[in-house]
This record gives sequence, C-alpha cells and structure tokens, in this order.
Amino acid sequence: MNASLHDKLAALLGPNGYRVEPQDVAPHLVEWRGRYQGWTPFLALPSSTREVAAVVTLCAEHKTAITTQGGNTGLVGAQIPQGEILLSTTRLKSVRSCDPVDDAIVVEAGVVLSQVQAAAQEADRLFPLSLASEGSATIGGLISTNAGGVHVARYGMMRDLVLGIEAVLPDGRVFDGLKTLRKDNTGYDLKQLFIGAEGTLGIVTAASLKLYPRPSSRFTAMASIASPERALPLLHRLKNATGAVAAFEFMNRISIDLTLKNVADLRDPLPGGAALALIECEASTAGLRDAALAALAAAIEAGEAQDVVVAETEAQTHGFWRLRESLSAGHRPEGAQVNCDISVPVSQTPAFLKQAQIACERLHPGVRIVAFGHMGDGNIHFSALIAPGASAEAFPRAAINEAIHEAAVSLGGSISAEHGIGIARLADFKRFKDPIAIEMMRAIKHAIDPNQIMNPRVLIS
Amino acid sequence: MNASLHDKLAALLGPNGYRVEPQDVAPHLVEWRGRYQGWTPFLALPSSTREVAAVVTLCAEHKTAITTQGGNTGLVGAQIPQGEILLSTTRLKSVRSCDPVDDAIVVEAGVVLSQVQAAAQEADRLFPLSLASEGSATIGGLISTNAGGVHVARYGMMRDLVLGIEAVLPDGRVFDGLKTLRKDNTGYDLKQLFIGAEGTLGIVTAASLKLYPRPSSRFTAMASIASPERALPLLHRLKNATGAVAAFEFMNRISIDLTLKNVADLRDPLPGGAALALIECEASTAGLRDAALAALAAAIEAGEAQDVVVAETEAQTHGFWRLRESLSAGHRPEGAQVNCDISVPVSQTPAFLKQAQIACERLHPGVRIVAFGHMGDGNIHFSALIAPGASAEAFPRAAINEAIHEAAVSLGGSISAEHGIGIARLADFKRFKDPIAIEMMRAIKHAIDPNQIMNPRVLIS
Repeated sequence: MNASLHDKLAALLGPNGYRVEPQDVAPHLVEWRGRYQGWTPFLALPSSTREVAAVVTLCAEHKTAITTQGGNTGLVGAQIPQGEILLSTTRLKSVRSCDPVDDAIVVEAGVVLSQVQAAAQEADRLFPLSLASEGSATIGGLISTNAGGVHVARYGMMRDLVLGIEAVLPDGRVFDGLKTLRKDNTGYDLKQLFIGAEGTLGIVTAASLKLYPRPSSRFTAMASIASPERALPLLHRLKNATGAVAAFEFMNRISIDLTLKNVADLRDPLPGGAALALIECEASTAGLRDAALAALAAAIEAGEAQDVVVAETEAQTHGFWRLRESLSAGHRPEGAQVNCDISVPVSQTPAFLKQAQIACERLHPGVRIVAFGHMGDGNIHFSALIAPGASAEAFPRAAINEAIHEAAVSLGGSISAEHGIGIARLADFKRFKDPIAIEMMRAIKHAIDPNQIMNPRVLIS
Repeated sequence: MNASLHDKLAALLGPNGYRVEPQDVAPHLVEWRGRYQGWTPFLALPSSTREVAAVVTLCAEHKTAITTQGGNTGLVGAQIPQGEILLSTTRLKSVRSCDPVDDAIVVEAGVVLSQVQAAAQEADRLFPLSLASEGSATIGGLISTNAGGVHVARYGMMRDLVLGIEAVLPDGRVFDGLKTLRKDNTGYDLKQLFIGAEGTLGIVTAASLKLYPRPSSRFTAMASIASPERALPLLHRLKNATGAVAAFEFMNRISIDLTLKNVADLRDPLPGGAALALIECEASTAGLRDAALAALAAAIEAGEAQDVVVAETEAQTHGFWRLRESLSAGHRPEGAQVNCDISVPVSQTPAFLKQAQIACERLHPGVRIVAFGHMGDGNIHFSALIAPGASAEAFPRAAINEAIHEAAVSLGGSISAEHGIGIARLADFKRFKDPIAIEMMRAIKHAIDPNQIMNPRVLIS
C-alpha cells in the first residue's frame, strides 16, 4: 500500500475510523467457519456515507482495490480481503426513518438484520427476511448477496424487499436511489445492479426496505413424508388451501438423525418418517388454521403425508425451527463434506435429489447425503459427507461438487441459489454459466468500475 | 434504408414475415390515442426468436436502428418508429409451457396479457397483472415498460412477476435467461436490465412469469371519504385487518362526475361523497369478508370513511370496476388536458394532491383537476383539464406539466410511476432525474448497445 494513501486515509478517518494493528484487524480476516483467511494493509471504518465516498475517491485516485465487509457472515469468501484495503460498514448504524403508512424503513448498511426486524415490530410492522445469521448479518451484506432464508416462499428474496439504494460508486460519487416509492418507471432500475453484485459495482451505504402488516395468525406444523415426490402435492395442496405458505422446509432422514446425534436437547417430532417437512403459513384473517388443518387431513388421506404434528405453543414452534436451524451444525462433526446450495424448478426437486445422490454414490461408495432446505423455492442445501472410516484422500471433493452442480444444471437449475459466487464457486460459475451472460456481466463491470477496484477477486473481472 | 439490407431482410423473413405497403404498415404507425404518428421503411414480423436474432444481426451489420413494438398500447410514444425499422413481436405467440407445481408460465413476447391470464386460469392458477389494455398489451411490451395496473398493492409490478427473460441483444446474440427458478444467485441479475428499459437494450422475445394460487374469496367495496387525508388511515386499517389488500383506487369527485356525464350506463354507488375509494381484497381462506367488514365498520366509526357499499354480486363488482376503468375515457371529451402519472410515498399523497392543485390553479384559474388511481401504491393519475370556455392558447400546458412534476419530486416522488419515459417525458426526465443516475444509464446503454441501434430516440442515448 502506497504510504501517501495510508496517510491520507488516516487523516480523513481519524483515530476511530481505521485500524492497522494485527490484533485489531484479525477478526475481520477470517471467515466464521475458518474456511477463508485473508490479509489487509488497512481496515477502514467509515461512519458516514460521506466518509465512505471520501475513502473510495482516494482509493480510486490511487487505483487501489477495496474489499467491502458487513457482518462477515458470507459463505463464499467474498468478504475476506486478499491484500486489498478492507472497508467495513459496521459503523453505518443509523435507522434513518421508519414509516408504517409508507410501509418503508430506511437504514444504513451496517444495521444488523435483527435490528431491522425489531424496529419494524416497534412500528407494528413486519420485515420478513429471516435467516440463521440474522443476529450478525448486516443490511449492506444481505443486499450485496441478495440473501434468501426461510420466508422466501411468501415474501421473496432480499431483492424483492428493497425499495431503494444509496451506494458509493467506484469513482467515489454517491448514487442516491433512496426513494420509498412503490412505482418509479424513470429508466433502468439501477438499484438492481447492486443487489447480489457481491460488492463488485460499488458500496451499498443505505437502503429503503419494504415492510408488511404483521400477520395476526401463524400456523406451524411438521409432516413426515414417504418421499420427496410425495412432498410436491402436499406443498401444492397447502398453497391452494391457504394462499399463505411462508415456509416449506424439507429435511431428509439422515440429516435429522446426524443432527440429533451431534446436537444436544433436540427432539424429533416424528421419529421414523423417511423425511420431514416443516410447514409455516401466516395470515391476518381468521380461518388460516382451519384451512391448513383440513388440507393436512386431506394430505394424509391422499398419502402425501404420513403423519403430522401441529405446533400448539410457541415452545413447540420454536422446537421445530430449532431442529431445522441446527442441521448445518449437526453435520459438521461428521468429517469431510462437500456443501452445495443449488436450486431447480420446484417440480424438479425429487429428480435432482435422486440424480445427485446416484452420482455421489458412484463417485464415493458409502457417501452420506444430507439434503435439506427451502423446497418451497426449489432450493436444496445438498451435502455429501465422507463415508464413515474413509480416508480424506479417498474423498473426491472436486468431482462430487461438479457432479452435484451438473445434476442441478441439467434440470434447469442453478449452482448457487442463495449463497452467491464469491471465490468459492468461481470455477463452476465459469463452467456452468452461459458465456453470453458472463460477457454481459463483464461489459457492465467494465462500464461501472473501469479500474476494477471493487472486490476485484470476486465474481467477475 | 439500404437496398441490400431490405433484400436480405425480405429473403430472411419470407413473404409473411414483413410488410412495406403503406396500408399494411399504417396501423403500426399511429398511437391509439392519436398522439404520436411515425413512419418506417420496413415492418419486420419475425415468427421466432431465431428470426428476431437474424433480423437484429443484419441491422447491426448495417448499423441500422430498430424500434420494437408489441400491442401498441404504450402511452409515451416509445413504440412509434420515426424512420427506424419497425420490429413487431406480434407473431411470437406461443405459450411454451405452464406448470402449476412450479407456479410458472413461459410465453413468447407477442402473447397478449389476457391470454396469459386465461392460460393460468386453465391450470387453476392466477397471473395477477391486470390493467385496462389487457386485451391488447403483449408480454414483451409489458416487460419493456414494467407495467403496473390495479393489483400492484398485493402482487407488485411486472418486474416482480418475471422469473426469467430471453432477449435478443443489439448485436444479434440471444441472451437465454429463461429459467423458472425462484432463487438464482449466480451474478448480476441481467433480466432486470430489460425490464422497464423501453426496448433500448435489446428485444425481449420470451419470458417466464410467476403464477399464484387462485384466491378463493374476493371482497370488493366502494367507500366514500371526506378527503385524501382520511383515506390514509382507512387504507392502513384495511391492510392491518386483512393483510390482503389487492387494490385501493382513489377517485376524486370531479373525476367521477365528468365520467358519469360523458360515459353512458354508469352508476355512482355513493353520490355526494367528496371522493371514492374502490377497495379490493383477496384471500384463499375463509374470514376475509368478516375481517374486511369489521374494519370498514370501525373506519366509519372513526370518520375515515363516510359510507360504504359492499359488492354482493359479480355484477356489482363489475359495476364498481367499470366506473373506475371509464375514468380516462370519461375525461377525454372535456377538451385540452395535461395528463400526469406521478408517484409519491403513500403517506405523501394528500400533500401532493393539495400542492399540485394549488400550483395548477395559480397557472390556470378555473382549471379542473381530475385525480384518480392507485393510491395504495402512492400512484396518482393527475390531470389538469382546461377551464370551461377558455381558449387553448390560454392553457399553459408545459408550465402545468412541470408544476405537477415539481410537486411530486419535491415530496420524494417520481415523474413517471408506471407509464415510462419514451419520448413524451424526455424533457422532464432530463430535468428531474439525478444526473449521476443518467450517467450510469448512459454507461450501461453504451456497454450493451454501443452502436445505439435499439430504440435510439427513446429514454437514453
């Protein structure tokens, strides 16, 4: 790093606005699962959009690259610098406004998801995005990765929840697209560029987000199902009966059993089911519970579900979700594994599960397939766990990863449903993504960031 | 037009694939209200994506500009050629697939909206986009203009209903983004570029669209309200009580009275109300009607509504909507008028109505302000009608237009909520749009269409 740039940044940000000592910077340089380790000559901690713009302006003048980091909960390595200046948005912490009549909240990039949920609740509104890392993940990061989570079936991805964005462009100018309008057809919808761009086109500094009425009733149940094929008509029946399915989470039997073995104080609500589906519906009018119960009774009659347990208390609801949210942790002690996050059209989830399992078994006899996740969106977290007793060298990670992605793509699917590309998926991105799409992305990247100083290792160059 | 290009296109498309005779081309050259008149040397009528790509490839080689037209229902002049080759998508008519389990339909660009609605209904699904021109407007045009309509409050704009897009790029390559995935985080969401781009970045040839369960109950009512200010808590109450407001359409008194005068066989369901709100809620569970009725009773108690009529039959529902949909036609016989399509944050609609009215009255005493539209989205169709007996020269059109837009922008609003920019709003676009946003749009336009052959007169150059 150029010494003069260091001095200018230090003068600009003041003593609270940057860190260079290894012990201060270290927590920002390691991914939370320990998979990526990085380094940076300078951690910038700007406290306002103006300061972010000034930092970027200086870096642009020096053609010095920047990696942006929010809550450091990303899963594909995009937020870990490899020598770039690291810009953390964690000091951009203000909730600028919250208007229940507009159903809109305006927050800065460093505000944590759970704080947005709480601010909405205080105004008697709902911010529906919900995911395991909601206590740490920041709005800037959630936008830059187009986060998904457990309520996508009803409310969509982060992209669907963004009304406006304020961002600092790669030359330091501020793009002010922070309106709270529901409709604005005045040209290209530029905010879309920053959503899911993994920090490669600029730095999101604030956003206006959609709020919803708080549903007055919530229905949560667990169903055991004989096979993924049977889950499809069950899901369809529930959608038709309630119009209000918010979550439909699939868990295969081995994913549950390993988690019960490795995580304390969990309960299997339906032991013996070949697979489970965690169902959540929500509505603001009476009648949801009756409609859902009738649909589930009909589903058992039709053989779509084997058995059903309905949560009658908050504690039971919490217990169902705790099982679901413990799955990743429950698989970690089982040794080497390949984790994929694919999506296919909803109707193709059973075919994907079958094809991917066969491919993995062929590559590694004895492999244990844990498959779970957002079946209502066609999004399966699919992991291949090393056969018990096998040596790490005998576990063909790369081939398994490719075979799983191959199965998804052959069914019209995607190699990354909600986690993004980062550096973790770059090789498969280049292999499976339409070359014309990659060329278009490159043209846009070069048009907006001609000096390639924004997250240059990530996604596209 | 270059003679060799003409011959190559004619050979490519065959006798059914193009028209050059004036009487054949004429219907495509005039906007349906007669506001824009154009000309073209060649009307291309390709019948497949492959043919569209071949036409564009030839035009790109000859650096010859193209204007694309769907159902010719646009309101801002974007679809009327001024010497460019005119490419009509009307022969791209295939419904490629419709899958109720995926809740997705794949259609070509020339399919008309009402056909998509019908195909969805046949599969027991709902395609929720609905607007006055749904019997003529095509999917390609609706995507290129990011159409809105009457159900945005519940289902969003066209942008929110698009899962994937196939488009021919300005160099003739085909961008194949026609997946039916709910989640796909593999880079920039390129389909967003084509939505609302008014044909300036390529030609949409097909799209995959979201379907929904068909709601089993619909509640439609008309409320009289003392003022726009009173309408806001009424809307908020209904949202909270039902979680299912699909439409909340405002109509001021004069907009109704002029329509009753000029359109036959209409009925005013609540004569004497200062303004009316047409309310529609829909849900799939019982209990909607009771919740909505209770909310409306409480609203009358609280003075938010003066009186309410609930539609008890299909005929009554139809009658309410017929009044709403007759408003534009009902104002046309009243002579010269300035029509705006603005949006503001929902909470600012009363302030906008007040400020814009005052500004118009100052510019043209005796002006009649008709204001109606999608108040639930903050989108008001606001028209200033010439004072009775005034001469056209005494009606300051440009100043009124600018004053209305000024009022919207000063309240955080937009000069075009759902109609777009085209050529009609270009001057105000340049005046009111953030210059940084215009520069970003230009950078993208030049990156994707460096020879500027796609709708070059429109939106951005």
